[in-house]
Parts: sequence; C-alpha cells; structure tokens
Amino acid sequence: MVVAFKEENTIAFKHLFLKGYVDRMDDTYAVYTQSDVYDQIIFAVNRYLQLRNISVGNHAYENEGTEQSAMAICQHFYKRGNICPGNDTFDIDPEVETECFFVEPDEPFHIGTLEEHKLNLTLNFHRLLAVELRFKLKAINLQTVRHQELPDCYDFTLTITFDNKAHSGRIKISLDNDISIRECKDWHVSGSIQKNTHYMMIFDAFVILTCLASLVLCVRSVIRGLQLQQEFVSFFLHHYKKEVSVSDQMEFVNGWYIMIIISDILAVIGSILKMEIQAKSLTSYDICSILLGTSTMLVWLGVIRYLGFFAKYNLLILTLQAALPNVIRFCCCAAMIYLGYCFCGWIVLGPYHDKFRSLNTVSECLFSLINGDDMFATFAKMQQKSYLVWLFSRIYLYSFISLFIYMILSLFIALITDTYETIKHYQQDGFPDTELRTFISECKDLPNSGKYRLEDDPPISLFCCCKK
Amino acid sequence: MVVAFKEENTIAFKHLFLKGYVDRMDDTYAVYTQSDVYDQIIFAVNRYLQLRNISVGNHAYENEGTEQSAMAICQHFYKRGNICPGNDTFDIDPEVETECFFVEPDEPFHIGTLEEHKLNLTLNFHRLLAVELRFKLKAINLQTVRHQELPDCYDFTLTITFDNKAHSGRIKISLDNDISIRECKDWHVSGSIQKNTHYMMIFDAFVILTCLASLVLCVRSVIRGLQLQQEFVSFFLHHYKKEVSVSDQMEFVNGWYIMIIISDILAVIGSILKMEIQAKSLTSYDICSILLGTSTMLVWLGVIRYLGFFAKYNLLILTLQAALPNVIRFCCCAAMIYLGYCFCGWIVLGPYHDKFRSLNTVSECLFSLINGDDMFATFAKMQQKSYLVWLFSRIYLYSFISLFIYMILSLFIALITDTYETIKHYQQDGFPDTELRTFISECKDLPNSGKYRLEDDPPISLFCCCKK
Amino acid sequence: MVVAFKEENTIAFKHLFLKGYVDRMDDTYAVYTQSDVYDQIIFAVNRYLQLRNISVGNHAYENEGTEQSAMAICQHFYKRGNICPGNDTFDIDPEVETECFFVEPDEPFHIGTLEEHKLNLTLNFHRLLAVELRFKLKAINLQTVRHQELPDCYDFTLTITFDNKAHSGRIKISLDNDISIRECKDWHVSGSIQKNTHYMMIFDAFVILTCLASLVLCVRSVIRGLQLQQEFVSFFLHHYKKEVSVSDQMEFVNGWYIMIIISDILAVIGSILKMEIQAKSLTSYDICSILLGTSTMLVWLGVIRYLGFFAKYNLLILTLQAALPNVIRFCCCAAMIYLGYCFCGWIVLGPYHDKFRSLNTVSECLFSLINGDDMFATFAKMQQKSYLVWLFSRIYLYSFISLFIYMILSLFIALITDTYETIKHYQQDGFPDTELRTFISECKDLPNSGKYRLEDDPPISLFCCCKK
Amino acid sequence: MVVAFKEENTIAFKHLFLKGYVDRMDDTYAVYTQSDVYDQIIFAVNRYLQLRNISVGNHAYENEGTEQSAMAICQHFYKRGNICPGNDTFDIDPEVETECFFVEPDEPFHIGTLEEHKLNLTLNFHRLLAVELRFKLKAINLQTVRHQELPDCYDFTLTITFDNKAHSGRIKISLDNDISIRECKDWHVSGSIQKNTHYMMIFDAFVILTCLASLVLCVRSVIRGLQLQQEFVSFFLHHYKKEVSVSDQMEFVNGWYIMIIISDILAVIGSILKMEIQAKSLTSYDICSILLGTSTMLVWLGVIRYLGFFAKYNLLILTLQAALPNVIRFCCCAAMIYLGYCFCGWIVLGPYHDKFRSLNTVSECLFSLINGDDMFATFAKMQQKSYLVWLFSRIYLYSFISLFIYMILSLFIALITDTYETIKHYQQDGFPDTELRTFISECKDLPNSGKYRLEDDPPISLFCCCKK
Repeated sequence: MVVAFKEENTIAFKHLFLKGYVDRMDDTYAVYTQSDVYDQIIFAVNRYLQLRNISVGNHAYENEGTEQSAMAICQHFYKRGNICPGNDTFDIDPEVETECFFVEPDEPFHIGTLEEHKLNLTLNFHRLLAVELRFKLKAINLQTVRHQELPDCYDFTLTITFDNKAHSGRIKISLDNDISIRECKDWHVSGSIQKNTHYMMIFDAFVILTCLASLVLCVRSVIRGLQLQQEFVSFFLHHYKKEVSVSDQMEFVNGWYIMIIISDILAVIGSILKMEIQAKSLTSYDICSILLGTSTMLVWLGVIRYLGFFAKYNLLILTLQAALPNVIRFCCCAAMIYLGYCFCGWIVLGPYHDKFRSLNTVSECLFSLINGDDMFATFAKMQQKSYLVWLFSRIYLYSFISLFIYMILSLFIALITDTYETIKHYQQDGFPDTELRTFISECKDLPNSGKYRLEDDPPISLFCCCKK
Repeated sequence: MVVAFKEENTIAFKHLFLKGYVDRMDDTYAVYTQSDVYDQIIFAVNRYLQLRNISVGNHAYENEGTEQSAMAICQHFYKRGNICPGNDTFDIDPEVETECFFVEPDEPFHIGTLEEHKLNLTLNFHRLLAVELRFKLKAINLQTVRHQELPDCYDFTLTITFDNKAHSGRIKISLDNDISIRECKDWHVSGSIQKNTHYMMIFDAFVILTCLASLVLCVRSVIRGLQLQQEFVSFFLHHYKKEVSVSDQMEFVNGWYIMIIISDILAVIGSILKMEIQAKSLTSYDICSILLGTSTMLVWLGVIRYLGFFAKYNLLILTLQAALPNVIRFCCCAAMIYLGYCFCGWIVLGPYHDKFRSLNTVSECLFSLINGDDMFATFAKMQQKSYLVWLFSRIYLYSFISLFIYMILSLFIALITDTYETIKHYQQDGFPDTELRTFISECKDLPNSGKYRLEDDPPISLFCCCKK
Repeated sequence: MVVAFKEENTIAFKHLFLKGYVDRMDDTYAVYTQSDVYDQIIFAVNRYLQLRNISVGNHAYENEGTEQSAMAICQHFYKRGNICPGNDTFDIDPEVETECFFVEPDEPFHIGTLEEHKLNLTLNFHRLLAVELRFKLKAINLQTVRHQELPDCYDFTLTITFDNKAHSGRIKISLDNDISIRECKDWHVSGSIQKNTHYMMIFDAFVILTCLASLVLCVRSVIRGLQLQQEFVSFFLHHYKKEVSVSDQMEFVNGWYIMIIISDILAVIGSILKMEIQAKSLTSYDICSILLGTSTMLVWLGVIRYLGFFAKYNLLILTLQAALPNVIRFCCCAAMIYLGYCFCGWIVLGPYHDKFRSLNTVSECLFSLINGDDMFATFAKMQQKSYLVWLFSRIYLYSFISLFIYMILSLFIALITDTYETIKHYQQDGFPDTELRTFISECKDLPNSGKYRLEDDPPISLFCCCKK
Repeated sequence: MVVAFKEENTIAFKHLFLKGYVDRMDDTYAVYTQSDVYDQIIFAVNRYLQLRNISVGNHAYENEGTEQSAMAICQHFYKRGNICPGNDTFDIDPEVETECFFVEPDEPFHIGTLEEHKLNLTLNFHRLLAVELRFKLKAINLQTVRHQELPDCYDFTLTITFDNKAHSGRIKISLDNDISIRECKDWHVSGSIQKNTHYMMIFDAFVILTCLASLVLCVRSVIRGLQLQQEFVSFFLHHYKKEVSVSDQMEFVNGWYIMIIISDILAVIGSILKMEIQAKSLTSYDICSILLGTSTMLVWLGVIRYLGFFAKYNLLILTLQAALPNVIRFCCCAAMIYLGYCFCGWIVLGPYHDKFRSLNTVSECLFSLINGDDMFATFAKMQQKSYLVWLFSRIYLYSFISLFIYMILSLFIALITDTYETIKHYQQDGFPDTELRTFISECKDLPNSGKYRLEDDPPISLFCCCKK
C-alpha cells in the first residue's frame, strides 16, 4: 500500500507541476523552445505557491521552525562558454557553476506576470546544463485509519529537472519523487486504534527461533555425516587398501540438509531485518525481501524431497537430477554460440535498433526470441537506411532463430528423453553398483542398531521449515 | 445483443457525462485540482438536466408516480478532521458521514454560473472521501423490432464516483452502469410480432426430457456394473480364495457412463435455469451458462469414445489415457518449483513490477512466460531504481524460463514418447494379463447369451446426448 | 499500386470529410450529442462544396452530361414512432422510410450558417435509424506516367454513414469508399508511352499453352496408369486367382501427376481470368488470385518430388508422408476436445471477453494460445464483475493450455519420432513386401523394353510447370 | 553517443520545424488541405528565421564566407498538365521541372503575413509533385567535454519534403536529417584535455599484428595439412593401389583452422577500417562493424573447440555436427513448402493484409508465426470485405501453422534424437572405421617423432585470437 500511495502521489505531482502533462508520456515529455522553458518554470512555481487552493490531496509545505520551506530554483551552467557553431569555434571552461534562488511560499509573490519573473531568472541556453526545481511537501496517508491502523506521515522531496546536458535542442523534463516515511508526532484519533505491530514482532521472533532450531539440527546431521564419511574412508583405506571415490564420499553429505541450512540462514537474517524495518530503524526493504523470498522458494523446493519417497515420483525427480549435469554442460556450449551472436549483434546492429543498444538488452532480446517472443516486430523495426545492415540483420536473425529453435532446443529434448530411458531401466534392473553400495549391502545390522539414528533428525528440522 | 447494447450505452454515457472523456482512458481518467472537481460535477449535472436536448439515443428520466426521479449528489467525508501534514499532526474521527442533496430534472435550475453552484456544494477536500452522482435513466432497445421480436425495456442506474479515499492528490473518476431488463408495460407495434419464446420453451423441455432419459439409462448401466462387480468379487473369493484387486474392480465401472451422467445432470439443471431466465423470473445468467457450457464440453469429449472403436485411433487415446497419471504426477513436482518461484517473485518483485502485484497475476505471468509470452516486455518493465532488485529479477527470469522450458517441458515429451512406445508394443504383443482378463478369456459364452446385454443401452443414451 | 492509391485516397477523404478525424481511430469515431450530428453533416457538406479549393489531390466532381453530380443526403427512419422510455411505453411501426435531398456543387449554397441548414434538415432522433451522405468523386492516378505507363481513371463512390440503429446514444460514423477503375476517355501525353499490356497478353497466352501441354501429358500418364492397373488386376485374377488389394491398386496412380493436373487446371483458369481483367472486362481480382496462388503453391510443392530422388532426402519425405495419416487421425481426436472447449468458452465467456464473442474468434484465440500467443493479455482482459465467471475462466484457460501444450503437442512429437524410426529401419532392411513388389521383382525386362515408356513424359510436363 | 546525439537533434528539429508534430507520429504525419500546406511551409520558414531566439540547443546557420547559408524552397512539378478527372481527360508532359527560391536568414523578411508569402510561393497542386525545404545547421556536441574528450563539430543537412507524387489528396511530410562530423577548426578549452585516440591507434595496431601472426600460423598449418594429404594419397595409390575417398581426404584439413583464418582476415580488415574512421578519413561505419562483428562471433564459436576436448562435451558437439547435414537437408524440403506458402500468400492476401505486402515481409511473417508470434493479431487483421478471401486466409493460416508446428518441427526433434542415440553408441562402441583410421592405427611412432609437429602451432595461433 505504501508503494501504491507513493505512485499515486507521483502521478498527482506530475499533473500538478508539469504543464500539459498526459499520462504515460514520461519518455517523450520535453520542451524545444526557449519560451516553453520559461513557461514551464513559471507554471511550476505558480502551482507551488497556490498549492493549498489547488491540490485535492493532503499536501502541505514543510515547516522549518516557524517558517515554511522554500522552493529552490537552481541552474547549472559552464563557467565560461563562447560557442559559435557557425564558425566551428568554441571557447569553453568545462567547470560547472551553480546558481540558486529561493521562492518562499508565504512571501507576497506577484503571480502571473511573465516579464517580472524573467528579470529574476535569465537563462543562457548556450552555457546552460540543467535547471532544477527542488521543494519538499508533506502528506499523511489516512487510508490506514479505516483498517484500524495508525496513519504514517510522508515526506516528499520533489525535484523537477530540465536536462540540457546534450545541447541537442531538446530539454527533457523529469519529475523525481523521493519519499521518506516517519511516525507522526502528534496525533489524535477518535475510537480505538492499536498498534498491532506488537503481535507481528512476537510471531517474527517465533519464526526466527524455529528456523534456528531447524538450522542447528541440520548442521548436526551434516557434521555427523562428515564424521561418518571420514571414518568410512579410513576404514576402507585400512581394510581394503583402496581410496574411496569422490562420488561415493559425496553420498554421505545430504544435499537436502544443505539446502535447508541455506534456507534457514536466509530466513533468520531476513526476519531480523524485517523486525528492524517494522521498528522504523531500517528502510532497505530490498535486501530483506530478497532474503525472505529466496528462503521461501527453497522451502517449497524442499517439498519435492518428500514426493521423492514415492517410487513413481522419484523416477521423474531422478531424471531431472541426472539430466541436470548434461543440460548445464550443453548450456555451456550453447552459451558460446549465444555470446558470439550477442557480441556480433551489439556491434553491428547497436546503432540501428533499440533492442540492441546495450549488451544486456541484446541478451534479453535474443533469449526472448528463442522462447517465442514477437519476432515480426523485431524484424520490422530493423528496416532502416543502410541496405547492407538490413541484409545482415535478416541473415543474423534467421540463422540465429533456426539454429537455436531447431537444433539446440531439440537437443535438450534428446538429452532428457535419453536420461529418462536410462533411469527407467535402472529402476527396473537396479542401479549400477558403486563400492559404497556393495559395502552397505553386506551390512546386516537392524535399523535400531544405532547406525541409522542420523535419520531421526530431519522430520523435526523440516517440520519447522514447513510451518513458515 | 443485450451485452452489446449495454456496452454501447455505457460508452455513450461516459462521453455524455464525463468532461473531456476519450475512448479507452478509463484507467487514467482522473482530476488533480479542486476547480476541476467542481467543473466535472457541474458538467455532469448540466448534461443530466439537458439530456433530452442532447442525447441522440432513446434515453429518458424515470417516472416515479407523476414526477421524475432526481439526481442524487452525495459526498462522503470523515466526521471530524484537522489534518496538518506540515506539523505532522492530525486529529481525526474515522467515522464516515454522508450528505446528499437532489437535483430535480424539472425544477428551474440555473445553469452555468459556477459561483451559484458552489454555494450549494462546498467540498472540504481534507476530509472528503468520495463524491457520488447517482441517477436513473431508461431506454428501449428497438433493434429487436427488425427481427420480428418484441423490444425490451432497460433501466440504467448510473453512478459517477469521484474517489478521494487515498488523499493522494488524485481523484479518480469512474462511471458505473447497472442494468436491469424488464418487459415493457404498454406497447403497440404495427405489423405482426410474435413472442416465439413459446417454441423455445417446448424445445428446452424436450432437451430436458431426453437428458433425463439418457441419465436414467446410464445410471441403470452403472448400477448393473456395480452389481456385477460385487457378484464377481464374491464369486472370486468363494472359488479362488483370492481378493480382486482395486484396478480390476474399477473395470466394471465404465468411466464414459459416469461422464454422461455428469453431463446430463448439468444439462438438465442448466436448461431449467434457462427456462426460468426466459420467463424473466431469474437473472443469474452466469451459473446457467457455466452449467450448459460444461455439459456441452463433456458431450463433445464423449465423441472420443466412438473414435476409440477404431484400432488406430484407440492407440492414441490409450496413450493419452496412460500418460495422464504420469503427467499429473510430474505436474505435482513441477508445481512445487513453480509455487516456489511464484512466492519468491511476489515477495521480491511485487513492489517493482505490475505483473507481480498479486499472487494470482504472478502465477498467470509465469505460466504465460513458459508458454512463450512476450518476455522482452516483461524484462523491460523491470528496469528500475534498485540495482540489487534489477539483478535479482534477471537471475530470477533467466533461471525460471531455462528450467521450465528446457528441462520440464522436455520431460513431458519424454514421458509421452515413452508411454506411446509402451502402448504400441502392448497393441502388438497383447496387453499384460490381469486376473479379470484371464477369467473372462476362459468364458466361451456367445454374445447373445445375456451377459452382454449391458452393452445395449449406451447407444440409446448417448444418441440422446448427441442431439443436443 | 492500385491498392495503395485507393488506401491513400480513403485516408485523405476521411481527413477531408470527417471533422476531428485522427488516424487509426475508425473503431471509436462516433458522436454522442445532437448538435455534434448536425455539425458533422454541415462540415462534410461544406467540404464537399469547397472541394476544389481545399483538396491537394486531383479530385473532381463527376459530370453527368452537362451538370455535375450532386451529393445525396438521405435519412432512414421508422415510419411512426412514439417512444416514451420513461413510462415503459412505445408505439412503433417498424417499416423504414427514406427521405433524401440533394446538394448541387454548383448552386449558390450559403455556407456556414448553422440555422439555415437546420431548416433543410431536421432529424427526429427517436425515430432516426441512419443518415447517409453519398456522393461521387473522380481522380486520375498520375504515378504510372513516370513508369512509362498510361494513367487510369478512378471513380470513387463515397458513403458517410451515421449509424443510429441501436439507439444507444452513440452514433457511429463510418466512411466507405467504393472504387471502380476505367481507362480514361481522352488523353494526351507528351513523349512516348506505350501500352505494354500487349506483351503481357502474349506471355499469358504462352503460359496457358504450356500448362495445357503439361496437363495433356499428365492426363495421358494417369490414364495409361489406370489402364495398366486394370490389366494387372485382370491378369492377377486370371493367373493367381487373387484379388489385388486397394493399396496395391493405388500404386499405379501417381499422386504427383494428379497434383500437377490440378495445378495446371488452376493455372489455366487463373491466367484466362487475368487476361480478362487486363482487358478491363472483369474486375473480380479475388478468384483469379486465389486460383493462381494455389497453383503456384502446388508447383513449389512439386519440387519436393525431385528432392525425393536422393535417398537421404527421401527418408524425410517418406517420414512426413507416413506420419500424415496418423497425425490427421490424431487431429480428429484432438479436434473433439478442441471443439468442446470452443463451444464451452463461447457459451460461458462470450459476454465477458472480446475474443470469445463468436465461435470463429474463439477458435482462432484458442488455436493461437496453443501456439504461444500472448496469454497474459488474454488472462488479464477476463478480469470482470462476476467472481464465478472469473474463476471459471482461470480453470478453463489453465486446463486448456496444459492439456494441449503438455499432452497433445508432445504426442505429435512421439508420433513423428516413431514413424521416423520405422521408416529408417525400412530403408536399411527393405520395405515390407507387397504382392505388387513381389510380382515386379520377378520381371527381368530391360528398361528399354517399352514397359517403362510411361516414365518419359514427366520431365517434359514438369519442365513446363517450373517455368511459370 | 554520436547516434544518440543525432537522434535527439532529429527529434528536436521535428518539433521545431513541423507544426503540430507529436512524438512517434512520423508514419501518419501528413496534411490534407491546400491552406495547411501553405501554413506548414510558412511555419517552417519562420522558425528557421527566428532559430537563434527559439532553439534551446547550440544550433547556428552555416557561414559561407561572410554571409550565412540560405534556406532553399524548391517545388517539383510536371512541365505541363491539364487534368480534368471530371471528364476523364488529361493532357500531361511527364517531364519534371524544378523551381527554387532562397530565404536568407539575415535579410529583413516580413514574418507572419500569410498573403505576402503566397505571392512568393504559388503552388499548382494539380501539377505539383513535391515541395522541398533544404537548409543546413551546425552544432557542437559539448557532452564529451565532461569526459575529458574534445568536442566534435556537426553539420546537419535538413530536408523537409512535402510528397505529393501520388496526387491522392494526402501530402506526406517527412523531415530528413543528414549528418557529417568534423573536427572543430578553432577551439579553446580551459583545463587539460587530451586526444586519447593516440592510445587507441596503438592498441588497434597491436590487434592487427596479433591477428596477422595467428593468420600466418594457421595458413601454414592448413598448407602442411594439404601437403600431407597429397603425400598420403600418392602413398596410398602406390602401395595399396586404392583411391582415397573424399571424406578421408577432408580429414587432413582442419575446419577450425579455416574458421580462424576467416576470422583473422575479417578482424584485420575491420581494424584497418576502424583506424581510418578514427582518423576521420572514412565514414562507412557499417562495413567496418559487420566485419568486426562477424569476426568476434567466429572467435566465440572457436571456444567450442576447446570444450570439445572433454569427452562429455564432445558428445553434444558431435551430435550437433552430425545432425547438421540432415537438418539442412530437411530444411531444403521444408523450404519448398515454405516458399509455396510464401508465394501463395503474397499473391492472394497481398492486397488485403499489411504483413503480406512484399515477399520479404510475407517470409518474415510466416517465419515468426512458426516460432510463436502473436497469431490472433494476424488472424484479426485479415477480416475484410471479400468473404472468399477471408475463408481462404483462414484455411491458409490454419493449414500452414498446423503443418509446420505439428509435423515439421516435430521431425527436427526426431532427427536430433536419432543422431544423439547414434553418436552415443559410437562413443561407447567406437566409431565406424574408415581406411584412414585403419592406416593410422597401424602406425606405432611416438608423438615426438616429428609427424605430429603440426599440432604444436594451434595453441599459439589460437592464443592470439582469444586475446581480442
């Protein structure tokens, strides 16, 4: 809801302070003549001064002590600049100077006479780099009152930038809205409103404790596994005079436990951050959400483990597991061709096509094309001046798509089909024997003999994870 | 046609009562200044008063007894509210009060002078939650006259809402149009017009009777099958001292019959609802259409049964049938990964991307991506402020698409290919013998010996279904 | 070029005669108030009268004898109509009357005074069905002069329709432009311009002759094949007392010849039509182009035959050929499920979603979804009032896409893979022997013994086809 | 950055010189009335004259000696033309005449009076082919100053074209911006700015040298291989009296070396061109970028070679390599069907659908459809006048998509799966023996015996390539 409130306010500010703004035209919102620049600035200043009579929201100026915060109008320009493009000559000092003056919302400011303002503000467009209008507004988000929650106070720091860095004849105008949320100082609400963040905190603490318990148990299991592995290796070396292969050694470490450990660590850190955020002592929601999100994903993945206890489900999971190395291996080969195409497309088509401007977008564009993005649009945008580049783009796209869709995607299917057959035969005829399995099969101990106690932990530890 | 008429009227009302409305801008139609709010309200009121001279349609005010229904202008606001965002202080009573006044279409209302109206209507924007303009209009859909049908009378209940719940400086305006259809009271049409709903009713009744007959016959078949099954189980237990396996027991219950029974029940209930709707005693078209639609789908699916009588068609149907459990089983595994990604995407990317706002849209978005939706657009929209989230979104999308398209979709193909091969070998070499088949194969009775009489019914029952 | 000229003129006419027309808004171009209707009509009439001073193209009025053709302004309305939606009463005579009056471009017509025109034209909006403005304009397409071709004369019949059939308060305005092309009567061009349709005619005649020759040779081959088949059947019956199987009999008829025959017939008819069109005695370009287009496609398909002479190419062609019956068979099964979904979607979702309005679009929408159309948009548009329908649409779309993409498309791949393996083994181990092959393999005649003369024709006949 | 600067300037010029221009409406920017044409011309001339007071960029007129370059206003028209479409008669001389007059930016030009200008410029719209406004502007790109680089001077040659070639009543207006970059003549920048193109040159020279070295080594390897091949052939002929098969002969030529040679040649030529461009003596960026791009792609592809040294990676690479001929072979067959559909679609649907206007777009459209482009949009656009064509388009699209997606794409998968199995068995059981392998296996020489010295080169040569 915080996000929605911020976005609605930003849209409202754009309509209030930018002249002739229409929804969703941020990319193309710009002015092209000198008089338009003055108009825009005066419009924004007037709107700021009359804000209380115009705005339909709860917007107010910020109070600094007794007086209200002013709007800063700053212009950045080159220190010295004699530019005569007609003679191909220029004399410039690239150092940037800044000049500001302030408009107080309370002082009697004569509104509307364009000439008067120009006296205050004279722009030398040849040297001008940017004009910035910066001011602060405050608002209260009353919506939460209706859900029996306490409203928050918002500080908006608005910056309207007239960007003339390029001196291309086009001054792009953008409005930037920085937000900070604080608890309101002095409030009074009729009826009963409670801060139920209290209960949230307790729940969060409970989650952290549970995750820690799960974490400890899993770590213990893994350590026991490693101890057993070392014991086994030395035993084997001693009795059979043979090294134990790495793949056999790996079987002692349960991959699922490691996944649970990672998931738990992420969940614990994420929850701690979440508590900090709720206590308003931290604002970096991003890291917290990434940690908690990844943790949640891993918990869901962990459920697959239990499905693997059924034979028929296991077949499919084993297939995916067995095919994964081959798929990754093949992805490496394909990635070489892919990167080749990426770099080539970037170098050649970059100046002619939006989607090929940066290596990053080239990669996204090609990846999307493989998976069925709208090709015709990509083809169509390429039609431009140079016939040679046009021809190259055609060959490039046809060959890329054919190669990847007809050959490489098909090979993935061949890989998976083959692995599926192999695993299926294994399930019917038994898996190939490794030394470890041969050794274990000789063991005739009963399950309650103590060797399998290791298996008792996971139900507890995983039980904790699933509750989250 | 009812739907089309309603939609056209709604569009016409939006153009008539909303100032500056342009087609398809419903999402962004809003006002941002106080004077615009007054303007909009006055515009709508004026248009309502002059409706008869402006509208090109058959719109009229509703008559209540002798006088015409008025337009209600209501404002909802907090009971008490002193909001000073400048000082971070507020004093509010979250109870909502409503104040209405009415504009009669007949009373001499001075049009156009903004000041006069403001006397009537003063909005306190700090406390204001919403302004609602509610009025009723009537129309007659004459189009049906040309198809020799009787025109219906329509009641439109229009609500123009100025929504200021968020107090974000943006008041969203929406026009809602509720419709109710009635037979006209008093009508006279030159030429012959007949109410042919009569014949429709008879046809519906015939459909219901046929479905009921089909239903009875199928139920009888299923019951006979269950009787035979019990007989067989007890016979087997008695003679061979063996339990009959569940899969063998299931063979006595014909799945097609059960499908026909469900289809018939849905069709009967749906047809009864349809008759009610035609008699204007019910208006819930939705349930009726869902019932009839599902029934129709099941009837079409039933046709596959007859294709199954040909050996080569049967191979394909059997493959699908045999692969279904495996596919569903595998879908469960994939669903775990899918849900993991859904939750993770929702938590992390929710505030930064429209398609990740709710769990529902996340699921739709990911599902579409697997099946080749336009990825580049999804990628492109993600580019925003935080670099960390941007990076996460890239890893998230690349890994998700690769995993699902290259591994999981390929495994589906492996599953189906494998099942196809298995079924093909079965057809050539004979299906594996179950106890039931062995038992039946010992039977040397001729088809006319009475044991197969059960098979005589379906042609009749299904014949009925197909006629629909 | 004719198409481009027509389209450009249509766009120009829309901008000339429709007030406030903006490119690509044909769907939403409508008026909503009575005064706008009058405005639009007067605007169009004024523009028509001043056409010579306004238009930048070569547009002129049509001369009928000495005077110029007038613009017809016609209104269609119900004969009698007292509609009082307020009382739910109406009295109507559904017979449609038409009233026209004419505006001569030459008569002194007082332009601009709205009141005067209203005297002439009074619309009763309650009874009004449509207003039509119909007039004729002429133009000459001079572009061809630059390619040394003779310009054609164009007649445009323009109809501006104000459609009020629905009486929904929205009058849709559309401009329809019918075109007819004629040779100009009297022309004089400096420099040498020749009618090179002459050479085109000779070329067309040559094509027709070649196709006829090819046709005759192929028919002869097919007839010889049938004769041989009958001979073989009677010989087989006489000597071996066995019936020849249908599949063996079919081997005598070469499918490629039949394709060539069809292609030739289409090409001949199409070419004849083309000559008629060039001679300006026919205007139905559609049938001609469909005939010639299909013929061209068949000729290209015929090239595959020659690729089939190489063993490795043949493998692939044989696979496709062998898999085709199975694929079609399976398509039938899938079509049942597909039709079930189509009807169900049409009935339930029809009123709530644009793409489900007609059975035809439902089919297109579902077909597109299977093949990776943008699903998210389809999902998103469905979000509407009724929760039940919303839920149904989700289940409907998820199940449909899963079923078709994961099961049915995979089965196609299984089918083709299986067929490929079968054909490959046949190529290595020999095809299964039919009686015909056994019989032929006994034959020791040399190729020049006259039995194979039949094979001499195709090179000639196909050579002709390829030249087209 | 050059590209971005040019684009921003072009957008700025469009807003400055075209009246009522809105972003991204280039396709539909046109005028339809005579007065609009005069308006547009006068607007552009005025804006040009007042440029210094209006433009917010560093734009200036070009100085030619002491005076500034003028704007040329040229009209092209038919020499003689009496066109009377009303009578279907015309008398025309297709020779094109051009009439120009010039507007000096300095001369006192009376601005704003429409009538005065019309005296100067009278357009005969019947004969008019085009009006062109051509003028030159200069600018300096100061952005580079901030990166411590020297700014470049830009010459813009602007051409505003009013295109009336079609005489369709629609005059399309387009603004074309030709750019040329030169070093500025006389400049002075405070602070230290260095021309670091110096270091770039040295780096480029180093790349060229490295590539040349790699090239020489690879050519040497290939030549040695050919020598060995000839030796082997003559040896074989002498000793075993047998011809060596072509495939065996090909094994002596390492395909990777040839790829490296091509890549090196492209890189060398490309780098030389790049140096020329940096020295401002060449401007054809296109060829240079295509050469360097292709070279980069080949270098990336070359990395696959090293992956092939691992057995498991090799399996996948060998599969792709072995499947390639079959895939290409099959593509030929598919191409025939594809071309058939292309030509057929072009002929029949061309006049009715934008995507079928030219053979090139038809091909792109069909190719996109196979790979999952948005079909519904393609379907939807086709709905037009002729029912026959509409039906044809449906059959055409359904059959095309079904055929290609269900049959041909599936066959690709079958091909790859089959090849994968074959190669896998080869890897397990050994590749089939060729004469060459049998011969080599007899050789018992040690690797340091001189026969394998050939293998020493590639590490050096490829090492060079990878550094790029």
